[in-house]
Amino acid sequence: MRIVTFGELMLRLAPPGYERFVQASSLGMTFGGGEANVAVSLANYGMNAAFVTKLPQHEIGQAALNSLRKYGVDTVGIVRGGKRLGIYYLEKGASQRGSKVIYDRAESAFALSERGDYDWAVLLNGASCFHFTGITPALGGELPAICMDALKCAKKLGITTSCDLNYRGNLWTREQAGKVMGELMPMVDVCVCNEEDAADVFGIRAADTSVHAGKLSREGYIGVARELTARFGFKSVAITLRESISASDNNWGALLYTDEKVYFSKQYPVHIVDRVGGGDSFSGGLIYATLSGFDTQAALEFAVAASCLKHSVEGDYNLVSAAEVQRLAGGDASGRVRR
Amino acid sequence: MRIVTFGELMLRLAPPGYERFVQASSLGMTFGGGEANVAVSLANYGMNAAFVTKLPQHEIGQAALNSLRKYGVDTVGIVRGGKRLGIYYLEKGASQRGSKVIYDRAESAFALSERGDYDWAVLLNGASCFHFTGITPALGGELPAICMDALKCAKKLGITTSCDLNYRGNLWTREQAGKVMGELMPMVDVCVCNEEDAADVFGIRAADTSVHAGKLSREGYIGVARELTARFGFKSVAITLRESISASDNNWGALLYTDEKVYFSKQYPVHIVDRVGGGDSFSGGLIYATLSGFDTQAALEFAVAASCLKHSVEGDYNLVSAAEVQRLAGGDASGRVRR
Amino acid sequence: MRIVTFGELMLRLAPPGYERFVQASSLGMTFGGGEANVAVSLANYGMNAAFVTKLPQHEIGQAALNSLRKYGVDTVGIVRGGKRLGIYYLEKGASQRGSKVIYDRAESAFALSERGDYDWAVLLNGASCFHFTGITPALGGELPAICMDALKCAKKLGITTSCDLNYRGNLWTREQAGKVMGELMPMVDVCVCNEEDAADVFGIRAADTSVHAGKLSREGYIGVARELTARFGFKSVAITLRESISASDNNWGALLYTDEKVYFSKQYPVHIVDRVGGGDSFSGGLIYATLSGFDTQAALEFAVAASCLKHSVEGDYNLVSAAEVQRLAGGDASGRVRR
Amino acid sequence: MRIVTFGELMLRLAPPGYERFVQASSLGMTFGGGEANVAVSLANYGMNAAFVTKLPQHEIGQAALNSLRKYGVDTVGIVRGGKRLGIYYLEKGASQRGSKVIYDRAESAFALSERGDYDWAVLLNGASCFHFTGITPALGGELPAICMDALKCAKKLGITTSCDLNYRGNLWTREQAGKVMGELMPMVDVCVCNEEDAADVFGIRAADTSVHAGKLSREGYIGVARELTARFGFKSVAITLRESISASDNNWGALLYTDEKVYFSKQYPVHIVDRVGGGDSFSGGLIYATLSGFDTQAALEFAVAASCLKHSVEGDYNLVSAAEVQRLAGGDASGRVRR
Amino acid sequence: MRIVTFGELMLRLAPPGYERFVQASSLGMTFGGGEANVAVSLANYGMNAAFVTKLPQHEIGQAALNSLRKYGVDTVGIVRGGKRLGIYYLEKGASQRGSKVIYDRAESAFALSERGDYDWAVLLNGASCFHFTGITPALGGELPAICMDALKCAKKLGITTSCDLNYRGNLWTREQAGKVMGELMPMVDVCVCNEEDAADVFGIRAADTSVHAGKLSREGYIGVARELTARFGFKSVAITLRESISASDNNWGALLYTDEKVYFSKQYPVHIVDRVGGGDSFSGGLIYATLSGFDTQAALEFAVAASCLKHSVEGDYNLVSAAEVQRLAGGDASGRVRR
Amino acid sequence: MRIVTFGELMLRLAPPGYERFVQASSLGMTFGGGEANVAVSLANYGMNAAFVTKLPQHEIGQAALNSLRKYGVDTVGIVRGGKRLGIYYLEKGASQRGSKVIYDRAESAFALSERGDYDWAVLLNGASCFHFTGITPALGGELPAICMDALKCAKKLGITTSCDLNYRGNLWTREQAGKVMGELMPMVDVCVCNEEDAADVFGIRAADTSVHAGKLSREGYIGVARELTARFGFKSVAITLRESISASDNNWGALLYTDEKVYFSKQYPVHIVDRVGGGDSFSGGLIYATLSGFDTQAALEFAVAASCLKHSVEGDYNLVSAAEVQRLAGGDASGRVRR
Repeated sequence: MRIVTFGELMLRLAPPGYERFVQASSLGMTFGGGEANVAVSLANYGMNAAFVTKLPQHEIGQAALNSLRKYGVDTVGIVRGGKRLGIYYLEKGASQRGSKVIYDRAESAFALSERGDYDWAVLLNGASCFHFTGITPALGGELPAICMDALKCAKKLGITTSCDLNYRGNLWTREQAGKVMGELMPMVDVCVCNEEDAADVFGIRAADTSVHAGKLSREGYIGVARELTARFGFKSVAITLRESISASDNNWGALLYTDEKVYFSKQYPVHIVDRVGGGDSFSGGLIYATLSGFDTQAALEFAVAASCLKHSVEGDYNLVSAAEVQRLAGGDASGRVRR
Repeated sequence: MRIVTFGELMLRLAPPGYERFVQASSLGMTFGGGEANVAVSLANYGMNAAFVTKLPQHEIGQAALNSLRKYGVDTVGIVRGGKRLGIYYLEKGASQRGSKVIYDRAESAFALSERGDYDWAVLLNGASCFHFTGITPALGGELPAICMDALKCAKKLGITTSCDLNYRGNLWTREQAGKVMGELMPMVDVCVCNEEDAADVFGIRAADTSVHAGKLSREGYIGVARELTARFGFKSVAITLRESISASDNNWGALLYTDEKVYFSKQYPVHIVDRVGGGDSFSGGLIYATLSGFDTQAALEFAVAASCLKHSVEGDYNLVSAAEVQRLAGGDASGRVRR
Repeated sequence: MRIVTFGELMLRLAPPGYERFVQASSLGMTFGGGEANVAVSLANYGMNAAFVTKLPQHEIGQAALNSLRKYGVDTVGIVRGGKRLGIYYLEKGASQRGSKVIYDRAESAFALSERGDYDWAVLLNGASCFHFTGITPALGGELPAICMDALKCAKKLGITTSCDLNYRGNLWTREQAGKVMGELMPMVDVCVCNEEDAADVFGIRAADTSVHAGKLSREGYIGVARELTARFGFKSVAITLRESISASDNNWGALLYTDEKVYFSKQYPVHIVDRVGGGDSFSGGLIYATLSGFDTQAALEFAVAASCLKHSVEGDYNLVSAAEVQRLAGGDASGRVRR
Repeated sequence: MRIVTFGELMLRLAPPGYERFVQASSLGMTFGGGEANVAVSLANYGMNAAFVTKLPQHEIGQAALNSLRKYGVDTVGIVRGGKRLGIYYLEKGASQRGSKVIYDRAESAFALSERGDYDWAVLLNGASCFHFTGITPALGGELPAICMDALKCAKKLGITTSCDLNYRGNLWTREQAGKVMGELMPMVDVCVCNEEDAADVFGIRAADTSVHAGKLSREGYIGVARELTARFGFKSVAITLRESISASDNNWGALLYTDEKVYFSKQYPVHIVDRVGGGDSFSGGLIYATLSGFDTQAALEFAVAASCLKHSVEGDYNLVSAAEVQRLAGGDASGRVRR
Repeated sequence: MRIVTFGELMLRLAPPGYERFVQASSLGMTFGGGEANVAVSLANYGMNAAFVTKLPQHEIGQAALNSLRKYGVDTVGIVRGGKRLGIYYLEKGASQRGSKVIYDRAESAFALSERGDYDWAVLLNGASCFHFTGITPALGGELPAICMDALKCAKKLGITTSCDLNYRGNLWTREQAGKVMGELMPMVDVCVCNEEDAADVFGIRAADTSVHAGKLSREGYIGVARELTARFGFKSVAITLRESISASDNNWGALLYTDEKVYFSKQYPVHIVDRVGGGDSFSGGLIYATLSGFDTQAALEFAVAASCLKHSVEGDYNLVSAAEVQRLAGGDASGRVRR
Repeated sequence: MRIVTFGELMLRLAPPGYERFVQASSLGMTFGGGEANVAVSLANYGMNAAFVTKLPQHEIGQAALNSLRKYGVDTVGIVRGGKRLGIYYLEKGASQRGSKVIYDRAESAFALSERGDYDWAVLLNGASCFHFTGITPALGGELPAICMDALKCAKKLGITTSCDLNYRGNLWTREQAGKVMGELMPMVDVCVCNEEDAADVFGIRAADTSVHAGKLSREGYIGVARELTARFGFKSVAITLRESISASDNNWGALLYTDEKVYFSKQYPVHIVDRVGGGDSFSGGLIYATLSGFDTQAALEFAVAASCLKHSVEGDYNLVSAAEVQRLAGGDASGRVRR
C-alpha cells in the first residue's frame, strides 16, 4: 500500500557523543524531518512510502535525497530547486542536561515552496494515506495553502489523512498555530499529538499533569482526546505520553481514542540513545499497523513498541523492521542477544 | 601454571557505538571466540595460557593471532593454514533493542580442521587444565572427534578438563548437541553453563524460571546442577545466572555446585558496555581462582566479579587484572576513581 | 568581577569511550586542572576569570594555553618557561569498574615554578577573589611558599580567598598535607572539600559514613564542617557529598556551613558522562553565585546544579552557562529537548 | 535508457588511510564489485541502471543493497537468498608498496546462484545494454551457464552486450578462463580489457611492453585489439592502459578499436586516492557516452576522463557527474576550486 | 602593533579526507573567512590582531568566536546578534578533481549587518592597519556603505588600509563588483589580488596567460599591477600567482609592485594539504612583514613563504609562526624533521 | 637466529593526518624507539628478536610492552619498574613544512636505568647479534656504562655488535657524543649512520654535500665511511643517504663499505606516508640480510628496499614481510595491486 508524506527534510548536524556544540570539531551528518521520518519507518516495514518535498539541486540536497533512497523511500515526487537545505544543529543531552536544538531552516528551498511546485493529483495517485505534521504549515509562506491543496485532493481521492500536531514554538505563535491548524484539521482523519501539543495549539489541557515534573495523568489525557475529537471530528486521536525522568531515561507510552473508546498501551522505561523522531516513529507505526489491519489495541501497541525502539536508534530515522517491533510488542523486552 | 584452551578465533566486526548495521560506514575490528577469550582472561591474570586453533596464513589470520600475542597468550600451538577466518558481525543493542549477531563462520580454516592438524601430546604437554566450549564440536566436520582426541589425551596426562556448554542454535540442533556433547561430557571434570544451556543441550530445565521475562529461580538451578552432576559425573557444575532487564541493564550472578553442596555468589546489577564474552570471562575467572587454590565460595565470587567487570569492557576479551577482580569481589563496587 | 585562580594545567589523555588503556590506539587530547577548571567555569558564566600557571613555550604548552583562551579565560598572567607539561592519563570506568588515573606530572614546568616567577601584586591587582586547591602546594618545591605569597598578597589587598582541599594521596602523605595545609588555611576564607578530604588532610571524620559503601551521613558532615570552622576560622565551609552507586551512577549534593548555620542542597541522581572536575565545577558555581549576591541557599543550589551538569559534560571543563545552571537549580531536571 | 549489469556485490573492508591490515582497529565498510560499479556510474550520469545479483536476506546483505539504492540504481531485480555476502579486504598501498587485496568470496550467495534464480526475459525487458565482466563466470558453479543464458536472451531481444575481461588469477587459471570466456565472447559486442587481460585470458600479448616496469607500448596494444576483434568478431575493443609509476602515481589512458580504426585518448598523470574500480568506471563512461551518441573519439575521451576522476574518489563506486567528466574531457585538468 | 580586519566568519563544513559530499557521514567543523584568516595569521605572528564581524548569540556563533579567541585574536569588537551563521561546505579535491565549495551564506547575521552596528572610531582606535577583502562588500545590503564608513574613518585616523580584491562570482556580477570596488579602491593603500581578480573585477587582463591551462606569464602581471596602480593610486599592489597543475600540486609565487618597481618572489612547488585561505595567508604575511619593517623583497618573500606553508595546514587558518615562515623564506624548503 | 636490541621504547603521540599540534583534539597512540623498531623489523622477518628496556609497571608501560608482543618480539628480558614512560610528540609535516618532534623523555624509567637492572650474561645468552643506537648512551645517567657492559659481554660471548650513531642534538652536545661514542665504537663491528651523523658525532664530513639543499654527493660519503673505518676498526659501515626534496618527497638510498670496497644501492624516490623509523628499518633489514647470508650487494639492497617500504607505513615500526622487501629489492617498484 502506498503512503505519501509531505514536509521538510533537513540536514541534521550533531556533535559526536555527548560533546557540547562548543567542543565539537566534527558534526555527524544525517538527515531528518517529521514527515520524512515517517516515510522511512514505513519503507522499513515494507510499505510503498513516498516522500514529497523540495530540495536544492546541489550535492547537499542530493545527499539528503540519497538518504531516503537508501532506505527505499520513493523519491520520484521530490521537486528539485531553490538554494538551501534547511539545517538543524542537535546537541545530545544526558542526565539532567537536556538536548539542545538550534534551527537554521529559514529560507530553505522547501520553506519557499510555491503551490505550483506540487501537482497533488499526480503525487497522491494510488495512495491510501496522506500524512503531514504541524511543522509544515508552520514554515509559512505558501505552505499552509499547499497543505490545504493536498488535503482537499486527498479527500477528493478518498485517501485517509493523518496529521501530527507537532507544535514548534520557534516557528509560530500559539495563536498562529491555532488558527492555521484549526482550518486544516477538519480535513484530517487521524490526529496524533504528544503530551504538550494539544495545549499549545488548541489550548486543550490535560488535568493533573505537569510535563516538566515528569509525571503525566492518564485520565487527564482522555479528556484531551475527547475534546479534540469533539472539536474537529477526528476518526481517532492518538496521544504519546512521555515522562521525562532525565535526558537519559524516559517512560514512554500512548493512548488511542476512537469510536468513543480509549485504549492505553504498555508503558516502557527507555534508556535513551537518541530521542529525536520518537513521535514520528509512533506515527509511522500507527499508520503501518492500521493499514495492515491490526485491531486497535494491537495497532497502538505496535506504534508504541516501534517508537520505544526508535529511542535506541541513532538519527531521526527509525531503522527497525516490522518483525523487530512485533517481537517487542509481543512481550520480549529483555534485550537479549539475537544470534 | 599452564592452561590450554581450544576453539575458534573469529574476526568480530561491529558498527561503532549503537549504530545499526545498515547505518555503519565503518566496523570496529577486534577478535574473539569463547576459548580464546578464556585464554586472554588467564594471561591477564598472569597465567601461562596457551590457545590452540587453526588460522589462515594471510594478514587477517595474522592480525587475529597478533591480538592474542598482544595480551601474552602463548600462540605457539596455533596451526596455520586454510583459507578464511570465521567472522561474526555484532550490532550492539540498547534499552529494549537486543544486540544482534550475524555469523559468517562456515568453511573457516578452523571449522575445516583435520585430526592430523593437532598433536595433543605435544600441545597439552605440561598443562594443568584443558578447556573448550560446546561451540567447538558444534562446528562439525572432524571437530567432535578432535575434541574427543584432546579430552582423551588430557585424561591420560592427568589434566583437569572443563567445558562451557555454550549452546548455539544456529550451529546445530538440540538433538545433535545432546548427542555429541553427551559423548564428550563424561571426560569433563568441570561443567560451566548459562541459564539456558542445560535445557537446550540436555533438556534439563530449571523449575519456576522464564528467561525472557528476566526473572530466574535460584532454587530451580540447584536442581539443574544436581541433575547434570548425576548424569555425567562432573566434579563441579557452575551456572551463570543472567537476569535481562534490558539490553542496557542486567543482573548477573552464578551458582557453583560441588561435592553435593551449592554456593551462590553475590548478584551484581550491571550497566552494560559490552556483554559478549561474559560467560567466557566467568570460565576464565573460575579456572584462575580454582588453580590458585581459592576456597569454593571465594573462587565463585572471583569468577562472578571477573565476569561482572567484563560487561564494562569493550570487545570479547576481558581485559582486567586479578587485582581489579579481587577489589570488586572484596566488596568495592562503588566505581570510584582510582588515582 | 575579576577572579584569579592558580594551579597546574595538565594535558589529559583519555582513550575514546570506555576503552581500557591497553586497548587504545588514540587518546583524546584535552586539558584540565583543578584551578583552571574553576577559571573556565567562571568565564563561561561571564566573569572576568584569570588563570595563573607556568607553561612550557613549546606547542603542547601553547595548546594548553589556547584551550583556556578559547573559553575566554584571561591568560595574560601565565608564565612561559620550563620543559614539560604535566600529563594525566584517564581511563573512564563504567558500572562496577572505576575510572583510572595515571599521573605523569612530576618535573612539570609548573611543579618547578620559582617564587620569582609570580608577581602577585600585579597578578591579583583588581581581583575580588583568589582561589586555589590543595593540589598546588602538594606539588612541592617552592609551591607551598608561592601559595603563601599569594594568600598574603590577597589578604593585603582585601581579596576573598578560597581553597578546595582536594587531597591527592599520590602527591603527598596525609601528614605532609596536614602540616602544609594547616599553615595555609588560616589565610583562607572559604573552604571547599569533598566527603573524604577533611579526614585525609586533617583527620576530621564524619560519623556514620562509609564512602566505599556509597552511603553518606548528612549529620556526620555537619560535624566536619563545624570542626573545620572551629579549627581554622573559615567564613564558610562547603562539602560536596557524592554517593557512588557505581562508576555510571552517583548521587550528588552538598552542604554549606556558614555563620553557624548549615544548608543542604537538593540531591541529584546523576548518570555520569564524565565526573572529572565535578568538585571544581562546584567551586566555580559557588564563587559565581556568592560574588553575584545570591542568598546562601540559592548559592549552594547553584553550585550543586552547576556540578550536577558537569557530570554530563566531557572533559575537565564545565561548559555550561549560568542560565543553564539556573534552569536546573530552579527545578527543571527533566532533560527535555530545548529547541 | 536502461542498462542492466550482472555480477557480484561484495562487502569491502579497508583499514583507514594507509594502515596495514595488522595495524587496523577498524575497517571502512563500503561495497563494490565490477558490474555494480558500472551500474552506479551509469546511475550517476542519470541513466536508468539496473543491477542484478543475489544477496542474502540479512542486514549485511541489506546494507549492500542499500548502497546501490542510495545512488539511484534500480535494485528490483536483485534476488534475495543464500547465506553470506562475499568480502574483500583492501589495504591501500602508497609509494613503492602496492595495495593488497584478500578475497573471502567463496560460497557467497551470488557464487552459489542457480540458473532458476534469474528470469532474464523479465530482467532484460526494456534494456538497451547488458554488461558483465569476466569475474562473474570465474566464480564458477552455474555462473558460466547463467552468463550464457543472459547473453542469449540479450541477443534475442536485440540488446547490445559488453564485457570487461577482468581476469582474476585467484579465481581461475588462464586455461579455465580462456575456455569459458572463449565460449561467451562470440555473444559479446563490446570488449573492454586492461593492459594485462588479453594476455592472461587469451594469450594475446602486446609487443614491446613490460607491465611491471610501468611502460606500455601503444603500438603493441593496437595489435592486441586487432587480434581480439579477429578472433571474436567484436564490434569494438577498448583497452585501458595503466602505467604504474608507483602505488601513488600512475599514468592513465586508453585506446578504442572499432571499424578497423584505432583511437587513442589523452593520457592523464593521476595522483591516486583510490584506484579500485578504475576499469569499471571506464566501462561505465564508455557505455554512457556510446548510448548518448558521442562520436568515437569523444566517447573514448569521456570514458578515460571518467576513470581518471575515479582515481580521486574513495571506494569502488565512481561518484562523479557527467558534467564533471565533460569538464575534464573538455580540457580543464587544473583542479581549481569550484565555488 | 594593532591591526583590525573586518568581514564574515563562516562555519566551514568539510567531509573527511577526500570524501565527496554524497559519501560523507560526518563533516569537519572549523571556521573561516578571508579577513578572519588574516587576523589569525597576524595573531600567530604575535601581533595584536582584532577581528570585527557580527555573529549570532547562539552556540554555533559562540563556537565561531571561540575559534578566534583560541588563537589569540582580539574579539572584543565582535557584534552579537542576528540569527544565522553563514556556512560554506567544502569538498576537497585531488588530482584532476578540483575542490568544490557550496555556499549557504545568504541572510547571515553578518550579511544583514547595519551601519549602526559598528562604531568605527572606537573599533579602529589605536590601529596601524585596516584590512578587508572584496567579499565583504559583495555580500550587499549595507555592507558596501559600512566598508566605506570604515575606510573613511581609517583615513581620518591615518591608518594604512589594505584590500584583497577576492572576486566571488556567486556573490555578485563583474559589473557590480567593478562599480562598488571602484568606489572603495581610492581609499585603499595596498591592493592584493590573485591571478584572476583584476580581470574579473576591473577587466584588467594579463597578457599571454591562461589560468586554466596552469601557466602564467610573469610579464603580463607586471602590466596588471601597473594599470591597477595607475587607475586607483595604490601605494603597492601584490599579485599572487598560482599555477594549477592539478588539485594536488600547484606552483605558488607572487609579485609586488611598488614605487614603480616590481619584485618577484621565489616560486614554490606545493603539494597541497588544504589550499583554502592561501591568498589570505599571503595578505597576513605581507601585513606582518611590512609592519615589521622588512625591506620590500624580504616582505614579499615572507608573504609567499607564509602562504606556501598555509597549503600544508588543514583549515582556513594559517597556523604557522613567524619563525617557521622565516626558516622557509630563508631557504630551507627540505621539510626535514625538526626535533 | 636470536638478535637482542637495547634501548628506550617511547609513547608516540601524533595528531591525526596533517593536523598541527594546536589543532589536535586527539593523538594517535603508538610506540617506538630506535632499537625497538629494529626488533619489530626482525620479528616481522621471522627472526627471534628480543628487546631489552625498562618500562614502568602501570598500564601505559604495559601497553608499550604489548605493542611489541603483538608483533612477536620477545619481551621476556624487559625490566619493569620506574615511574614514567618517555614520550615523543610527533607532528607530521607536508610539502615545505617539516615534521616536528617534541621530546618529553627526561626522567623516564629507562633513562633512570641502573647497571644492576640488566644481567647481560642472561640477556645475551644464545644471541647472534646485539644492536643499539647512539640514543641510548645519549640518555645519560648510567646508560653509557650499561652500553659498555652489554658490549663487553657481547664481545666475550662472540656476538656481533652493531650500532646506529643516531645523533640527537637535544640529548647531548656534539662534544659529549663524540667522547662517549668514541669509547664505545671500538667494541662495535657494524656501524650504521645517516648522511649527518658522522659529522655531528665525530666531525667527519662528506665533501660536496649540503643536506638542507637536498643534494648529496655519493663520492663524499665514501670518504666518510673510509674514515670511520679507519678510526674505529669497523668491519663494515653503512650510510643511509636521504635527499629531502620536501616533507612529502625524498630520495632514499645507501652505501655499504666493507673490506675496503664500497657498494651503492638503488635509489628510490619515495612519497612519504611516515618517515620516522626509516633509519631503524634500514638497520633491521641489514641485520636480517646479513644474518641470512645474503651477499653484500643483496644485503644492502634488502636493507634499502626495507627502509624504502617503511616510508609507506604509519608508525615507527616497519610492518613488512621479508617477501615484500624481496619483491621490491628484486625490481618491482610499480606498486600494482596484489590480489
